[in-house]
Amino acid sequence: MIIVIQCTDQVGRVAAISGVLSQEKLNIVSLREHVDIEQNHFYMRVHVEQDAPAAALTEKLRAVLPADAIVQVNPRPEKKIVVMVTKEYHCLTDILVRHHFKTLGAQVQCVIGNHTTLQNICERFDVPFCPVLHDPADKINFEAAIHDIIGQYKPDYIVLAKFMRILSPGFVAQFPGRIINIHHSFLPAFAGANPYKRAFERGVKMIGATAHFVTDELDEGPIITQQIIPVNHTYTSTSMVKAGREIETSVLARALQLVFDDRVFVYKNKTVVFE
Amino acid sequence: MIIVIQCTDQVGRVAAISGVLSQEKLNIVSLREHVDIEQNHFYMRVHVEQDAPAAALTEKLRAVLPADAIVQVNPRPEKKIVVMVTKEYHCLTDILVRHHFKTLGAQVQCVIGNHTTLQNICERFDVPFCPVLHDPADKINFEAAIHDIIGQYKPDYIVLAKFMRILSPGFVAQFPGRIINIHHSFLPAFAGANPYKRAFERGVKMIGATAHFVTDELDEGPIITQQIIPVNHTYTSTSMVKAGREIETSVLARALQLVFDDRVFVYKNKTVVFE
Amino acid sequence: MIIVIQCTDQVGRVAAISGVLSQEKLNIVSLREHVDIEQNHFYMRVHVEQDAPAAALTEKLRAVLPADAIVQVNPRPEKKIVVMVTKEYHCLTDILVRHHFKTLGAQVQCVIGNHTTLQNICERFDVPFCPVLHDPADKINFEAAIHDIIGQYKPDYIVLAKFMRILSPGFVAQFPGRIINIHHSFLPAFAGANPYKRAFERGVKMIGATAHFVTDELDEGPIITQQIIPVNHTYTSTSMVKAGREIETSVLARALQLVFDDRVFVYKNKTVVFE
Amino acid sequence: MIIVIQCTDQVGRVAAISGVLSQEKLNIVSLREHVDIEQNHFYMRVHVEQDAPAAALTEKLRAVLPADAIVQVNPRPEKKIVVMVTKEYHCLTDILVRHHFKTLGAQVQCVIGNHTTLQNICERFDVPFCPVLHDPADKINFEAAIHDIIGQYKPDYIVLAKFMRILSPGFVAQFPGRIINIHHSFLPAFAGANPYKRAFERGVKMIGATAHFVTDELDEGPIITQQIIPVNHTYTSTSMVKAGREIETSVLARALQLVFDDRVFVYKNKTVVFE
Repeated sequence: MIIVIQCTDQVGRVAAISGVLSQEKLNIVSLREHVDIEQNHFYMRVHVEQDAPAAALTEKLRAVLPADAIVQVNPRPEKKIVVMVTKEYHCLTDILVRHHFKTLGAQVQCVIGNHTTLQNICERFDVPFCPVLHDPADKINFEAAIHDIIGQYKPDYIVLAKFMRILSPGFVAQFPGRIINIHHSFLPAFAGANPYKRAFERGVKMIGATAHFVTDELDEGPIITQQIIPVNHTYTSTSMVKAGREIETSVLARALQLVFDDRVFVYKNKTVVFE
Repeated sequence: MIIVIQCTDQVGRVAAISGVLSQEKLNIVSLREHVDIEQNHFYMRVHVEQDAPAAALTEKLRAVLPADAIVQVNPRPEKKIVVMVTKEYHCLTDILVRHHFKTLGAQVQCVIGNHTTLQNICERFDVPFCPVLHDPADKINFEAAIHDIIGQYKPDYIVLAKFMRILSPGFVAQFPGRIINIHHSFLPAFAGANPYKRAFERGVKMIGATAHFVTDELDEGPIITQQIIPVNHTYTSTSMVKAGREIETSVLARALQLVFDDRVFVYKNKTVVFE
Repeated sequence: MIIVIQCTDQVGRVAAISGVLSQEKLNIVSLREHVDIEQNHFYMRVHVEQDAPAAALTEKLRAVLPADAIVQVNPRPEKKIVVMVTKEYHCLTDILVRHHFKTLGAQVQCVIGNHTTLQNICERFDVPFCPVLHDPADKINFEAAIHDIIGQYKPDYIVLAKFMRILSPGFVAQFPGRIINIHHSFLPAFAGANPYKRAFERGVKMIGATAHFVTDELDEGPIITQQIIPVNHTYTSTSMVKAGREIETSVLARALQLVFDDRVFVYKNKTVVFE
Repeated sequence: MIIVIQCTDQVGRVAAISGVLSQEKLNIVSLREHVDIEQNHFYMRVHVEQDAPAAALTEKLRAVLPADAIVQVNPRPEKKIVVMVTKEYHCLTDILVRHHFKTLGAQVQCVIGNHTTLQNICERFDVPFCPVLHDPADKINFEAAIHDIIGQYKPDYIVLAKFMRILSPGFVAQFPGRIINIHHSFLPAFAGANPYKRAFERGVKMIGATAHFVTDELDEGPIITQQIIPVNHTYTSTSMVKAGREIETSVLARALQLVFDDRVFVYKNKTVVFE
């Protein structure tokens, strides 16, 4: 059973929490705690050997913690997600395959696409595909349609798996800390459009990918994880795009695994990740 | 202040320890705990914000822990080490430079060499060099001489920085968990002599290095850290040796940093490393 | 257009080959040449800007090269492969997805399984699945049945994508340099069975995967590529298996890409890989 | 013997060059050729087994190449360098140690420092230290003094090993393609001052270092090599600085090795690196 807690820090937090667990005869097999001293904020992830009724334990933990505490006992073991895509398949198929073989750690409820390119592959995996075609002149209705679909499914997270439209701040604000994006550069380098083309022009010797939560500032949200691969003079911007797909797939998969395992805490514009 | 503890596991260990710290008004800013369920063994490393008298706190912690507990409050912030070398300079100079600029986290008391090749570089850094020349016919006196030198300095750790003689089980037994070696392969591949030559002959595409504690079985002691670098068909065994030096230096430096920061626990033939 | 050549070495090889290409007005945009001095063996991969009739150019190149030369002008741009599997899906689905979206660089002709576990996923991708169930008492008929299926398809390569049966030397001998396997360790460490269990017991700090050509000595064939990922004390052998899947998938994908791009030369028990 | 050539591209370049080498009975053991099609520019690095008189061979090669060709036969096997530093030791000591043990591949002629902090360590290695203290109000005389010192030594390269002053475009223009800098970020991220502080504030999960040639645009010159290391929420900007030193040292060492081995070509704002 996993327990995750964050709240303002104070002497005695670990003692209070572990005291409750000890009284309940729960054995802690792995504990990670971190205090952000600058922000005076406390983060903890506990893995206990036994199971216990979540509601009762949550109440006992809340009783020894401040009012601002976020306490999750045995968070939903299988998250629900909606995936959004455009035309590129690689991040989506990685998710669909893991979902199909029950190794994703989440339930894919539907895939929303602003093109129909990826409808067929979703159907092969028996996952509902919802096309929401994009009329550039009418972003309001476009986002409203997406919002309606999401509203039907009530997912824990919305995963932008190479969704190439920028969502408006108003849309993003409705899902704070719940939209995960994969960006095809090692942010903050090459934020915005065409990162591989700019990487090629600059002559960099490595390209990267960044998984992050989406906020109302483009490519500025809290970073979950990043990786890079080496490139060299033989790469064109086209072959960088191709090589980059491998790292985009891998980084998004890793970020989702961390989030679904309840290892990622968001506070202000940063994450704490207990890997 | 750092506190490290290991003992047999039981429900309530974290509560007992953090309870003592809370009573002493000590704020935990970082805590790592791990239980090896198979061995029923408990490991914890705590970083607290404030300092406290070590002896008194140790006593209070021991009072709530079983008799087998190893408790270190504020372990010696600067370890004392003796370094042993043969002819290769790269690991030694990395240690000497960091020591000189006070970034090693340890005090180099002396360097023991079974050749005099590296005497000059030690002198340039004002570090005592003790030659103990090796008579292959007389290993007993060789090791006795080394033992005498170490006995004068009483180091916390003995670092084999490319020391190319095999120490006898009898010698090793006198410093359990205190001799650190750098081996020039990713163990368990290529244990023993001439790893690069054998790597070349096998046609591997990566070579590695392993820092480990020395036990009486050659290259079989608990591993602290390992790294690899890619190689290819253009490498000869000679150029693998040259490339390998970079990774050997880097792996040993990393291992020493982890050990000197009290992040490494040894139990039976494995380590727990709270990076 | 790609040209690959290997033969015994002699002064003037590059001049002879590039002389032919120059006469044909073919511009070399990328050239990699390597001589294994120990073996006196010459390897070259040339990328030329223009296309040319392959048969005529091959003849002209052969005319300036020794009789033992292997010359391939414009090797089949899309290789044909047969994939062999047991129960684990991850390497297979990576191949099926790339094949489906035409980014594999090869045509998957059929999948042979010694269990039917993966039949369904092959059907979802419209790829023929041929079950050849294994009777441990009758390896001869088992391999004969596999041989028959392969005989129908005449693939360029046979890819063992987590096929967990050992093929007999007699079987392997029929496809020299054409069977590619993914082994779940950084060979030569943990050759043979249960590498993750043994890695766990040894307490290594990294696990790896190796793609290699299969020869009649188990896990001893020429290595194409290898990668590793870090692990630590929190991993059980089960979680090493899970983490290892990521690297197995990635290493096999990389090896196939290199082979399908005609970047891999095999000579005796080693490879030359022009990455 | 190494031969490096760059010039405009045309059909027949490789044939012309290898024809000359073949006539001279020189055996090519390794050849790397690359054409930048966009720029119509040709790059080649050849390793031949035998030695030959450089001047005569250069003349014969020039005779078959266009007027813009840069031909170097057997480039100076040991480059001469001047190193410039401020207060941080780590890149300098790495250079001094390799120089001392004759594994740098270059001759350190002197070290110029705008502080005297590193004078002592240079003296320990018997390397001349030239202090050129910096008067912020008088950059012209500061750079003139540096220029005078460099003028005495006529180095092949000037290595900025954590030299924390920005050199004026006028100064840089006098040493085109000959000043190598280590920047403490993965450029183009965090160009300019205080990269670690900004990396901390952004919450990145990796930090890097970049070795590049210096041009008149700050941190915009041709990149030679880059590497990154992972960081996480436990890092402060101070511990990022500390961790970053390891990667800065390693990246600069790698870049120097590549340059001193004649593997790096500069053309416009990019490099071709034959690793």
